[in-house]
Amino acid sequence: MVNFDYQTPTRLIFGRGVVAEKLRDVMAQYGPRVLITYGGGSIKRSGLYDQVIDLLADKEIYELPGIAPNPKFNPSVIDGVRLCKEHSIDVILAVGGGSVLDCTKAIAGAACSDADPWDVVTGKVPTLSAIPIVDIITLAATGSEYDSGAVISRTETCDKLAYFSRHVFPAVSFIDPTYTFTLPVKQTLAGIADCINHIMEQYFCSEHIMMNDAFMTGAVRSLVANVKKVLAQPDNYDARAEIFYATTLGCNGIYALGNSAGGWPMHAIEHALSGHYDITHGEGLAIITPRWMAHILRCTEGELHEQAVERVTSFGRDVFGTTTAAESIAAIHDFYKSIGIPMTLHDVCIDDSRIDEMAHHVAVNEGLEHAWVPLHEADIAAILRDSL
Amino acid sequence: MVNFDYQTPTRLIFGRGVVAEKLRDVMAQYGPRVLITYGGGSIKRSGLYDQVIDLLADKEIYELPGIAPNPKFNPSVIDGVRLCKEHSIDVILAVGGGSVLDCTKAIAGAACSDADPWDVVTGKVPTLSAIPIVDIITLAATGSEYDSGAVISRTETCDKLAYFSRHVFPAVSFIDPTYTFTLPVKQTLAGIADCINHIMEQYFCSEHIMMNDAFMTGAVRSLVANVKKVLAQPDNYDARAEIFYATTLGCNGIYALGNSAGGWPMHAIEHALSGHYDITHGEGLAIITPRWMAHILRCTEGELHEQAVERVTSFGRDVFGTTTAAESIAAIHDFYKSIGIPMTLHDVCIDDSRIDEMAHHVAVNEGLEHAWVPLHEADIAAILRDSL
Repeated sequence: MVNFDYQTPTRLIFGRGVVAEKLRDVMAQYGPRVLITYGGGSIKRSGLYDQVIDLLADKEIYELPGIAPNPKFNPSVIDGVRLCKEHSIDVILAVGGGSVLDCTKAIAGAACSDADPWDVVTGKVPTLSAIPIVDIITLAATGSEYDSGAVISRTETCDKLAYFSRHVFPAVSFIDPTYTFTLPVKQTLAGIADCINHIMEQYFCSEHIMMNDAFMTGAVRSLVANVKKVLAQPDNYDARAEIFYATTLGCNGIYALGNSAGGWPMHAIEHALSGHYDITHGEGLAIITPRWMAHILRCTEGELHEQAVERVTSFGRDVFGTTTAAESIAAIHDFYKSIGIPMTLHDVCIDDSRIDEMAHHVAVNEGLEHAWVPLHEADIAAILRDSL
Repeated sequence: MVNFDYQTPTRLIFGRGVVAEKLRDVMAQYGPRVLITYGGGSIKRSGLYDQVIDLLADKEIYELPGIAPNPKFNPSVIDGVRLCKEHSIDVILAVGGGSVLDCTKAIAGAACSDADPWDVVTGKVPTLSAIPIVDIITLAATGSEYDSGAVISRTETCDKLAYFSRHVFPAVSFIDPTYTFTLPVKQTLAGIADCINHIMEQYFCSEHIMMNDAFMTGAVRSLVANVKKVLAQPDNYDARAEIFYATTLGCNGIYALGNSAGGWPMHAIEHALSGHYDITHGEGLAIITPRWMAHILRCTEGELHEQAVERVTSFGRDVFGTTTAAESIAAIHDFYKSIGIPMTLHDVCIDDSRIDEMAHHVAVNEGLEHAWVPLHEADIAAILRDSL
């Protein structure tokens, strides 16, 4: 078991009706100047925007709308930082999915620095403090509501960068599963795939403990069972709630404290896909997953190969009841396909024309030669080609 | 799934050598006046006391030694509060097991109040702030290092009271599993039983989610497997570490967020045993456990009976691989007996002379008529008699 230093100070307020019940009290702890960040119009159509404005009637409200999926440094982070500085914002209230919250984290950190915001996001300049963040998370997927990380894209350079700072943990996250009742099926499924992959990235490693294996495969079993329930009945509260809880824990480390690091290879490869083609992150992950699993069985030998076979086999056994490594890979592929996730790059309109470019980008930027199963440029290209 | 409002701000620094590595930096965040609280002489014999004093050479050190198991309001809490007030203590460093830390929490809360410390501990006067607590926890058992609760005994009245305040979460908990290598076997086993029971108190309830079932039965399976390893090899680091991690998560709620409350009936009954006889808490819990399980099958009918049968059966199935409720109860009893825990009240020198008195005490003070399976005075007496 490896040493760890863990802290997640975020308060989770979870359940039906929690915004009406507690948002006003929570926001009363901060000063009057609130920046509300959000994405497209969905929170206006759902009535959540009006509810929030109503609950914050005693506040001085500023707004940053239009934050896109795979949130962009330019214009969203830049505009947010400017608004925070111009209006001496006391607290940022992010209302939306993981992209809105990720963008908000970058704004909160960069707004407390005199440095160029891009230098803060890339970590060239350390984040020493941040504007407090409260969020109302409306999408069960990234787990950003319970971690200190964000992924920010810079379109000009096809960069998709991870930004981390302990200062950008949300102070309070409101999670009401009823907000997910009306999600498009595509987003529900992409969120599930995102979370399953977060768990798999932590499951596949050299050193692991029994408890964490039980936590992680238990969470994936729950996601597999509950996604079928919500496809049949989108307003099944208990199924939506358990999915949201599983995704909330996905990225803060609690599933795998004491495990060794695996290197998050599937995310690294997917970031090249969505960085180059702006596809839905969860779909990209689902496509990569079985191809990465198959590749690590092929590209390893000796003790590492035995480890790879053991992990692939045990994951399938404990989630799907399969018995061999090949069956485990087929089971995760077939599960995704059965619920309607596109499972080839062609399905998401990506052909082979930029595979070498993407493989090179990943090899240069992501450090996968240090992953649990080391991956070099040729491995990455092979995984991408297998995904076509 | 039930609504929840959850926050555990404590930083966990876990692993081999973490005190030497990080204690000085952590303590540097606080003012110079440190109260060190501890129990008997074990931290002096082990060298931990000297190490701590050495690491805090630049601090002004005060000491509260001699905190007993089942920590006593009088004299420990009273003395601690006096020391904190007399010396304007900036931070309390608790070094020891759960009893030392529980006592420290009561001191930290009561020392910030002008009220009678007993009124703070009983909740008659609310805790509005507390002196910051850092701990070095040396016993894998109570999970006090990651929760905001404490259990305090008042000998004169046979009271054993739970004290809770969000202000007494430890700021930082240092957990080095090597400290448990030299524990007496009795303490190792009592700690395991304490943690298994914490988990069972959260597992047995009316509303529960798949994920939490997997978390909890996975943690108990891990405890069952690892206790056998440490009995064979007391310095098995990985086994000691996984046990410690399971116990650390035991009481802060993370195993069962979204489950309904069960009412902690076994703890309530055990508190009467250790309140009246000062026995080891974990041993008392182990003795009560199978008798409570058997009793809830007998004292229920209709839908609640079906729930009770389902929960008892599924716990045994997922932990021990048993198939019926009776086998599940036998399995937990036989597991405890096989590792050497005394499994009758006679074994811990308790006879039937005060059973009615204890049952009355529990019935009046613990509110078990509101537990998942409601228990009245006659039920409690029956469980105690079955435990003889």
